[in-house]
Amino acid sequence: MATDTDIPFEAALLARAEQVETRLRALLDSRPLSGEIVRPERLVSAMRHGVLNGGKRLRPFLVLESAALLAPGHDETPALTVAAALECIHCYSLIHDDLPSMDDDDLRRGQPTVHRAFDEATAILAGDALLTLAFDTLADDAIDLPSDRRAALVLALARAAGAGGMVGGQMLDIEAEKSAPDEAGIIRLQAMKTGALIRFACEAGAILTGASTGDRERLAEFGSAIGLAFQLADDLLDLTADAGTMGKATGKDAAAGKGTLVALHGQVWARKQLNGLVEQAHALLEPYGEQASMLKAAAAFIANRNN
Amino acid sequence: MATDTDIPFEAALLARAEQVETRLRALLDSRPLSGEIVRPERLVSAMRHGVLNGGKRLRPFLVLESAALLAPGHDETPALTVAAALECIHCYSLIHDDLPSMDDDDLRRGQPTVHRAFDEATAILAGDALLTLAFDTLADDAIDLPSDRRAALVLALARAAGAGGMVGGQMLDIEAEKSAPDEAGIIRLQAMKTGALIRFACEAGAILTGASTGDRERLAEFGSAIGLAFQLADDLLDLTADAGTMGKATGKDAAAGKGTLVALHGQVWARKQLNGLVEQAHALLEPYGEQASMLKAAAAFIANRNN
Repeated sequence: MATDTDIPFEAALLARAEQVETRLRALLDSRPLSGEIVRPERLVSAMRHGVLNGGKRLRPFLVLESAALLAPGHDETPALTVAAALECIHCYSLIHDDLPSMDDDDLRRGQPTVHRAFDEATAILAGDALLTLAFDTLADDAIDLPSDRRAALVLALARAAGAGGMVGGQMLDIEAEKSAPDEAGIIRLQAMKTGALIRFACEAGAILTGASTGDRERLAEFGSAIGLAFQLADDLLDLTADAGTMGKATGKDAAAGKGTLVALHGQVWARKQLNGLVEQAHALLEPYGEQASMLKAAAAFIANRNN
Repeated sequence: MATDTDIPFEAALLARAEQVETRLRALLDSRPLSGEIVRPERLVSAMRHGVLNGGKRLRPFLVLESAALLAPGHDETPALTVAAALECIHCYSLIHDDLPSMDDDDLRRGQPTVHRAFDEATAILAGDALLTLAFDTLADDAIDLPSDRRAALVLALARAAGAGGMVGGQMLDIEAEKSAPDEAGIIRLQAMKTGALIRFACEAGAILTGASTGDRERLAEFGSAIGLAFQLADDLLDLTADAGTMGKATGKDAAAGKGTLVALHGQVWARKQLNGLVEQAHALLEPYGEQASMLKAAAAFIANRNN
């Protein structure tokens, strides 16, 4: 439930989303790249449709605030670019996830999904292009980071997004429809499918600011805790919210017979678990004192969001 | 047509393919990655099906031979890893290209395509995972290259594979079925769809060995010339070869009404053009003398191949 204390946080999230939107628009401009290379109009339109859709930009927010925590007052331009690259990965995964052979969704945030607005082939290619653009963006020295940090960002994002991370989690999710996983299986699936990118978002702030290994690990652990919370909150919302609030079909997981921890242990357990995860996330940020208040608010927001 | 002088080249190509195969098998092993992260079996099986299929490994060959030209006697381990990463990109593009909403092919090298052997969702995810794995591999310091070279390889490959390269070319190819492009349009489409990765293959040898900008540009230009030759030879084969020789359906481009330069100017012109491109490619390698004989043979092979 939203309370008065959430309002400054939500305003901060909105302000960050606007910054990220500007950076994403620049990345998805159809101007020529280097030399005479021009990206096909239709492909760029489909990429823009899949990305510039009014998302909350939660993962970019986490990149920006993790970086601000570890290097207060730093020039935020590189962090914004990393945040935008991560959002390209998130959006590509939604485009492919919505395809007829995957979740077969017609709507995303109340708008036609990319394969409905364009066609299936274009949606597949737009996803492929966004995935590739994310690594292009991180590796480019236009980002103004030393090459070791650029390479580390590419590696960490590829690990989070690949077969041992998000894409692997999507595979497990599809298999879960045929054969319900046990509790350990559900936890593994969720840590990969949604947890890995959220963990990366927090870790990225440490990598791009050149923080110590200790800070990097602490931020990554914080990311893991709020990633778990994100998924638990999502499962609760799937049971309780209606389609109008969510901007997408709800109750689908239950209908598909997918096991969730909420289905396994009930809503009371899930809310208690959520509180525990927020406490754990907050405890990880104790060493940073007042500086960490924005990330702490993010943890609470993720656990209590209603859409 | 194969002649006696091609035999040493074909033996070299086969020997290189075996080396690349070994490196690819290691990358696609289903062992745990770092820590407890395990890639789902079904996903790894689909990735292996799409990659370990007896390909000629022409692009990896070009990486290895370009590197050998510029740094004779160097440790080839990093070059082999770069070559394998590039092949992951090539194979992902074939998996997605074969999908029902794209080219809708049932066979690839005489074997069922990934979506036929598994299913469509698994094929989409296997492609996504291979695309991501390529950048994971290039960015990893296990490759034993300085971080500036790793970042440069990621950037150059992402440019070659993304919306301004291969994926953009695939988009133009789909659009060409509805509205036939003019000669400039065909050249642009082909330079992007098949040319960009072949150009990268040659350029990568220069990047990974830390060669001079002059060498890098020369190798990239060589790659562009043989990329054009590759596509012209492909268009000729599509007209003249039968499905048994090619291991896939032939005559499809003509049936789909796709404009090719061969359709526009005829086979005699095309063969003349091919010879001109081989001459141009050979001229670019003149400064390297005898050392370049393997890459020169590759240019001739590409122009004269019969499958």
